[in-house]
Amino acid sequence: MPGEARQSCYASYMPSAAPAPLYLTLADKIEALIRASAFRGGERIPSVRTMGRQQSVSIATVLQAYRILEDRHLIESRPKSGYFVQLRPADAQPTDLYQRRRIQSRSLAKFPPLMSLVHDVVDPGFIPLGGAHPSAALLPTRKLASLMASIARLHPQDPVTCDPAPGCARLRTELSRRSLDWGCHLTPDDFLITNGATEALFLALSAVTRHGDTVMVESPTHYGILNALSQLHLNAVAIPSSPPQGMDLDAAAKVLAREKIAAIVVVPNFNNPLGGRLPDSARQRLATLAAMKDVPLIEDDVYGDLYFEGTRPSCLKSLDRTGNILLCGSFSKTLAPGYRVGYLAAGRHHDRIIPLKTALNYGNPPLPALTIAEFLRTGGYEHHLAKLRRTFHTQIQQTRAALLEVLPDKTRVSQPQGGFFLWLQLPASVDAMQLFHDARRSQLNIAPGHLFSPDAEFNNHLRISCTHPWTDRIAHGIKHLGKLVAQQMRGTFSKK
Amino acid sequence: MPGEARQSCYASYMPSAAPAPLYLTLADKIEALIRASAFRGGERIPSVRTMGRQQSVSIATVLQAYRILEDRHLIESRPKSGYFVQLRPADAQPTDLYQRRRIQSRSLAKFPPLMSLVHDVVDPGFIPLGGAHPSAALLPTRKLASLMASIARLHPQDPVTCDPAPGCARLRTELSRRSLDWGCHLTPDDFLITNGATEALFLALSAVTRHGDTVMVESPTHYGILNALSQLHLNAVAIPSSPPQGMDLDAAAKVLAREKIAAIVVVPNFNNPLGGRLPDSARQRLATLAAMKDVPLIEDDVYGDLYFEGTRPSCLKSLDRTGNILLCGSFSKTLAPGYRVGYLAAGRHHDRIIPLKTALNYGNPPLPALTIAEFLRTGGYEHHLAKLRRTFHTQIQQTRAALLEVLPDKTRVSQPQGGFFLWLQLPASVDAMQLFHDARRSQLNIAPGHLFSPDAEFNNHLRISCTHPWTDRIAHGIKHLGKLVAQQMRGTFSKK
Repeated sequence: MPGEARQSCYASYMPSAAPAPLYLTLADKIEALIRASAFRGGERIPSVRTMGRQQSVSIATVLQAYRILEDRHLIESRPKSGYFVQLRPADAQPTDLYQRRRIQSRSLAKFPPLMSLVHDVVDPGFIPLGGAHPSAALLPTRKLASLMASIARLHPQDPVTCDPAPGCARLRTELSRRSLDWGCHLTPDDFLITNGATEALFLALSAVTRHGDTVMVESPTHYGILNALSQLHLNAVAIPSSPPQGMDLDAAAKVLAREKIAAIVVVPNFNNPLGGRLPDSARQRLATLAAMKDVPLIEDDVYGDLYFEGTRPSCLKSLDRTGNILLCGSFSKTLAPGYRVGYLAAGRHHDRIIPLKTALNYGNPPLPALTIAEFLRTGGYEHHLAKLRRTFHTQIQQTRAALLEVLPDKTRVSQPQGGFFLWLQLPASVDAMQLFHDARRSQLNIAPGHLFSPDAEFNNHLRISCTHPWTDRIAHGIKHLGKLVAQQMRGTFSKK
Repeated sequence: MPGEARQSCYASYMPSAAPAPLYLTLADKIEALIRASAFRGGERIPSVRTMGRQQSVSIATVLQAYRILEDRHLIESRPKSGYFVQLRPADAQPTDLYQRRRIQSRSLAKFPPLMSLVHDVVDPGFIPLGGAHPSAALLPTRKLASLMASIARLHPQDPVTCDPAPGCARLRTELSRRSLDWGCHLTPDDFLITNGATEALFLALSAVTRHGDTVMVESPTHYGILNALSQLHLNAVAIPSSPPQGMDLDAAAKVLAREKIAAIVVVPNFNNPLGGRLPDSARQRLATLAAMKDVPLIEDDVYGDLYFEGTRPSCLKSLDRTGNILLCGSFSKTLAPGYRVGYLAAGRHHDRIIPLKTALNYGNPPLPALTIAEFLRTGGYEHHLAKLRRTFHTQIQQTRAALLEVLPDKTRVSQPQGGFFLWLQLPASVDAMQLFHDARRSQLNIAPGHLFSPDAEFNNHLRISCTHPWTDRIAHGIKHLGKLVAQQMRGTFSKK
């Protein structure tokens, strides 16, 4: 444990015979309480004055102890608010919360198609904290427009000519090259071009399920996945997921042993809304479980390029030995959401998905795919990505700090490892759906937690998007959110 | 009857007391035989010499009788081939052929996903007689490219920004205006923008059916419709259709009384492959039948703008009194197949199709839709359409004449009233699937008849597309088709 390493490191600077100074003893004592979860991530610890009184030590001693705990990354001071226990990934999603309920298959027939959320997201009148697409201001819009125009000018017949499934050969070639970064060795023929990863997921699910089948998902998971299951008349069985462990594979294995599962859908890299990364050991176990049970494993990798540290994480697909993993991806989170360019590498399911895509919409429009292919080939995609990752990371930190500033003490906020979402657990009394409606009236767009579960969970949770550049307007929106939460907790707003 | 009117007109020029001249008596006699179907459309009538001998009249008398029959548009002479009974629309599709079999619901699980056809269609190496999209050479490609480039240049953020369902408001406004031409009064809010009419059809079917349901279709009908049913795990019940009557509504009514039908799919304007137009009386009856039984009626109107005579035919949707007709259309047959811009006006099913489209692919890419909207607003769409209709009509006539020249006497070729397809009935011994494979080896692309029926019918039929400008290459392709048919009939090609 890093904490232990740091502790022994501190200890080694002390003469072995001398007693530890008071401030160090106090710091160790508080650390033990934090590690025992007596103080939990995001909680305020007693003020310097209170702690001094409780422990019968001077204020200077407490201050010194708190500084040590700050150095140990265990607490943080917030101006005018006091000292708070730092959130560790594990704090953001206490696993006990999700393991309390029985895991069972549920119909999504009544899953809320919250169309107002979808439309507010693209309404410039709204403060954008609810969407899942990067702001155009962060994207190479002019470069893309210029590439598109020159392709259309040089080959005016190409854009009007149909490009039937599997679609744009040039883009499939570029994807094949990029797949090495994902730990895969996919050929151009392994890919089908789709209208975004949403369509890739829809095709993958359609190909491997029949109405009434049950699909295993993570909980919390992306609203779009649950809406797809609902529209395809599929049931969901939701497996608790929390960073840093990711999906609870013991629970998954039990369900797989118990009932027929038609497919598993998982977002291993920086999932929406948690922003966590499935650990390598869990990946291997999940791939093996799916292969052994011959359950198609659908992987949504739209956030894989948006890692904050280290290198590009591999895809589950890299562990595919039986052609059973269907990899969905897109350029909607990194280049051009409006182009609707995604892809599906469906392994041994590929051949039967081609006639399905043909029946669905024949093929993609060729020009957006050609433009993305050209951008990948010549436009400096890696340079753009490096900048975008830094931007999202900064926006996440700014938004997180601002949220912690205005939200109640018991709020827990995730610490994502990539992507652009924050997942908030508000005090249990908060009704996030009510909050969504209240925020909507003030033109503030947020995503209520119950959209992320088939089990009507997370109704004191919110997903906050850090997709737009930090501005006073965003800051104002976050402050306003704080007010709405406070008002709701004081009961000044009537419940619906 | 036009024939009778002409006859009395001829008669009035004869002195009433004098006996009719021999040639006129002979012409009337032959006309009676043709009308009684003793000679059928497309058949060769006896040569001048044979007829003279049979009727004991001079060659000059027969020649004069034949010229009168030519004036009456009953026969036509073909250089070096003799005289042939002209095809009337009714001749092209003898209804008895389709009414012989029992009408029953059939699974499409094994419906052939003939992907090689789909790919040959866009392979420039193939002589294009099998596709369903107009050649780019007939489309305003430069104008579209220039509109697209200027939209992207003036508003570089628009193309990368998502446009969730129902999609492009500007295009929906233009569609609302155009709907007056279809006999409808649809508002922008009645429309959903889709990736081509293919996707509109897929969404319509998905919304109103469940796996295992039965859908009523015309027979013959478009391959794409049958593939959609197959991919959606739906069964088909095929109702015989033939010009000029269209779908046999007596048969449809019997089926609707007998079994549960989840939806009816019909192409009332210049259907693919027949090119006929459902008569007004039949439209009213069909709409009433569907409304009474509360069966959703899905109308595919992609060829409505491609009429050869008179004015734009109305849509079935214009008869919708209960919100039960789902109108699918696109600009793929008239402007830009590759843009994949279509629409769905789904009546009372609209609201539940929006979350379905959202789950499917979130929305369309905005730029193609914006470009089409701008073309409709300022680009001279009507002028383009007028020219395109003349072009297709001419291409149809050229292709038809060339086919009649090279194909066996008993071949019947449709006389479409719009669109760009010809439907050929070859002698019963011809195996069109074999012909497809033989033609494929010579890089000639044709569509075999059995793709147009769920009942494995029409295997001596072909659909020939007149989508490309007439060239020596097309002429050569048709001649080669004639040779392949002749070779097959002589049995020189081994059957597969």
